[in-house]
Amino acid sequence: MVTSAASRGGGVGTSRAIAVASCASWRLGVETNNIRGWYSIPAECRGYVSDYMFGELFRQDCAVVAREAAAYAEGLELAGGGKEVWVFDIDDTSLTNLPYYADTGFGAEPYNATYFDEYVANATAPALPEVLELYETLLALGIKIVFITGRHEYQREPTVKNLRSAGYHTWEKLVLKPSSLGSSVVPYKSGERQKLVDAGYRIVGNIGDQWSDLVGAPEGDRTFKVPDPMYYVG
Amino acid sequence: MVTSAASRGGGVGTSRAIAVASCASWRLGVETNNIRGWYSIPAECRGYVSDYMFGELFRQDCAVVAREAAAYAEGLELAGGGKEVWVFDIDDTSLTNLPYYADTGFGAEPYNATYFDEYVANATAPALPEVLELYETLLALGIKIVFITGRHEYQREPTVKNLRSAGYHTWEKLVLKPSSLGSSVVPYKSGERQKLVDAGYRIVGNIGDQWSDLVGAPEGDRTFKVPDPMYYVG
Repeated sequence: MVTSAASRGGGVGTSRAIAVASCASWRLGVETNNIRGWYSIPAECRGYVSDYMFGELFRQDCAVVAREAAAYAEGLELAGGGKEVWVFDIDDTSLTNLPYYADTGFGAEPYNATYFDEYVANATAPALPEVLELYETLLALGIKIVFITGRHEYQREPTVKNLRSAGYHTWEKLVLKPSSLGSSVVPYKSGERQKLVDAGYRIVGNIGDQWSDLVGAPEGDRTFKVPDPMYYVG
Repeated sequence: MVTSAASRGGGVGTSRAIAVASCASWRLGVETNNIRGWYSIPAECRGYVSDYMFGELFRQDCAVVAREAAAYAEGLELAGGGKEVWVFDIDDTSLTNLPYYADTGFGAEPYNATYFDEYVANATAPALPEVLELYETLLALGIKIVFITGRHEYQREPTVKNLRSAGYHTWEKLVLKPSSLGSSVVPYKSGERQKLVDAGYRIVGNIGDQWSDLVGAPEGDRTFKVPDPMYYVG
């Protein structure tokens, strides 16, 4: 769709307009989980994704997610007692990897594991501000935070350092992926949520930028999808 | 967000631009199931939703869904034998109710049950063209179609007439809601999908414009969300 629509354009202006509209449809398809299993963004959407990620719309899209999540949390009847938790994904949910992706084509270039490992080791990823604000709201309500991340156990130290420096000062658990696990995160993340339930926790909410953060029982009482048009994790 | 953002605008032009961007974020929130339980669209988004529904973007958004669904179906290894089915929702999936919504404020005015019943009885709803095309692709692959709709059993006759006149010429089952059921459609629709599985069918796909068409086990092997910013069914 994107490719064929873009190539239909008569002049440069028309092509650009069609590409932008078409990239918008592609982005909606990604966000609604209709488009799955992709390895890089469409080449012609690189400018679009860059504009989106650095523009006001991404900020507003994030604010809507955080607002809805906070309103939902504030409306919960909480038992207290420290067993009510909210699961947070880390990469491009709690912390933004926009500095890494801005350097590598906004998802148009292949994933660079060496460079990304360096990025993680540097521990300089900024918080996604709207998610940090939600985090504070949840803590104030007495909900505890559990991070479940696709980062590996060997990255624990820089991850802790980065979370703290970005403003995430406390949590109930920080679950990192054992290095032995395969690449699909759904069994890993849903399995870790099941362990929480088995340990007596109630997962009142679950927030992530990938559908693979959110699907697979137990999902949590409610899930929230943070926008991310840069990459796909299945 | 929508209201506060819109009220921040300095001049008319600024307000309008902010409202449009803000309505776009609201729409994304709806499509990703982050915004739930709403009764009408934000009043300031009426023009936005009208422009969207009558514009090229809605068409392209629908085309992306249909393209991804067709590509998925074409990649399936099918056993044949007539037990592989795809579940279709009817309202604003197979058929579009845009004529009704265009007359009633694009979701800004309260739902008018009397008028909507007349609309259904008239049996004049057009097909959503991209979904009709997907329907034909699936039939050609040997996948059977099961309609599961929130329309009531007493509306069977005009529904059959409308489906046929819109181009849906054959189906395995057409399941309508018993009038005695409550308003939440998730137990009804997932229950009907369970009956299909119990009867030996494999649900290879499931398409609908509401998340309540798609969630609740068994969901089907894969689900597809058709855009609909006009109303919410929980």
